[in-house]
Parts: sequence; structure tokens; C-alpha cells
Amino acid sequence: MNHLVVPEAYPCAFCDYLRGARPFTILYREDLAAVIVPREQRGVSHLLVVTTRHAPTLLDLREAESYAVINLLRRAAKAIDLVDRRPGISVWQNNGVDAHQAIPHFHFHVAGTVEGGSTEWQDVPELTITETDSIAERLRSHF
Amino acid sequence: MNHLVVPEAYPCAFCDYLRGARPFTILYREDLAAVIVPREQRGVSHLLVVTTRHAPTLLDLREAESYAVINLLRRAAKAIDLVDRRPGISVWQNNGVDAHQAIPHFHFHVAGTVEGGSTEWQDVPELTITETDSIAERLRSHF
Repeated sequence: MNHLVVPEAYPCAFCDYLRGARPFTILYREDLAAVIVPREQRGVSHLLVVTTRHAPTLLDLREAESYAVINLLRRAAKAIDLVDRRPGISVWQNNGVDAHQAIPHFHFHVAGTVEGGSTEWQDVPELTITETDSIAERLRSHF
Repeated sequence: MNHLVVPEAYPCAFCDYLRGARPFTILYREDLAAVIVPREQRGVSHLLVVTTRHAPTLLDLREAESYAVINLLRRAAKAIDLVDRRPGISVWQNNGVDAHQAIPHFHFHVAGTVEGGSTEWQDVPELTITETDSIAERLRSHF
């Protein structure tokens, strides 16, 4: 147990995506972790590194999962660097509603900065799966 | 080589702190990574997980360093949870000036949320070393 207040959002969207119950773009997956392409792109490009198991927060990660996740985070950042060639790459990871966590399933955000710097914090348009598939296609060969 | 534009800030403050050339609060250190207490506290509490080697960004981390760093990140978050009992914990890691990186030496920020949610993004007062030492003291027994 811990003191975090995580969002109550069930069924879990990421679990649904990972088991194919709802369509979503999965760029890469392995046993303990996966890289998916969010429909709200807050950077160039913006990827999520998620655990395959439903671990709500950083405090719930097992050691082997944490290694899988940091490996994929490094690989995702490298693919963004090689393909998008941005001067900045932001990483963030939210635990609890107060920290802006929206989906109660562990994920790192990693995103190349936008023109003018930083990443988008305001509302952004929701892309179609066809559009996020094409982002994955650009990055996959460098992953 | 990569496309990140990192800040030019030499000599590196974190290298100076880690080798004792300038005073700073080191909560915990091991061979490849360390936990330090920033004087600008943007959360309750706010810690930095740094590599002991001068690796400028996420793209420069070696695998063993990445494991050391994620282990200390999890331990730092758990100590904050146990001691500060906040409903949210934020993690962020900036690469390149465009992503708001200020010191060109790899570091994860981890911080419990403040009253009202989120963490402080505006100017915050710079604490004394005596004050950051006392933050380390509170957390160390749970680290």
C-alpha cells in the first residue's frame, strides 16, 4: 500500500489496447514492456513506454519490469532522435491524479520538443489510428 | 552523436557536487548513481537521481547506469511516499535546452505533489545546505 491517489478508470485502456480489445498503435512489444503511440501527440514524436502487466504506478514496478521499461525508454528516445532530429526530448511519468495521471497503468511519456521548445500541455487534436500507425511506421525501422 | 542541443554549463555543477568540490546534499550514493537534494524544491520532497559519470542525457546512458538510475528512482519515490505521504508523485527528465535541461548531466527529477496538486514550475526560493541536509535526514532512514 502507498499514499498515492490513482485515477479510477476501469476497464484499463492500456490493458485493453495491449490485449487487442480496442484498436491502438503498438510500435513494439516484448514480454514485460511495450511502446505505444498515443493519439494525443504532445511532441515530435510522442511515445509511451508501458508495462505489459497492469502496474498502476512507479511504486508498483517489479525490478525486472523497471529494467525492461528503462531499456525501452532509451530505445524510444534514440528512435525519436534518429528520425525526428529534435533539439530536445522530454520524459515525464505521472503517479496519482494530483500529478496528472489519467490512466492507472504505469507509463513513461517520451517526446521530442515542438517548434519553439517544450511539449504541448494544452489540448491537442486526437489523431486517428491510421495516423498513429504511420508515426509508428516511421520510427519502427530505427527502433 | 545525436541531435540534442544541451546547455553549455561548465564546469558541471553535478560533477562538482559529487566530488565534493562544492557543497551540496547527497542523500545516497553508490558506484553508478546517486540521489541528491536540489536547493530549489519544486515538490514535497523533491530529489534528483543522477549518474555518477558525466553522461549529458538519456541518450548517453550505458545499460548498467540505466539500471542503477531506475533502481534509485524507485527507491527515491518510495522514500517520498513513506515520509511525505503525498497523493501524487511526479517524475520528469529533460534532455536539451528546448526541453528545459539546465545542467548537462543526466538526472531524473522525482517530487511529491504540493498542496493543490502538481509541482512548482515558477521560481521557488533557494534553500540553504542546512535545509536540504534536513530534508535528506528525514528521508534517509526510509531509503
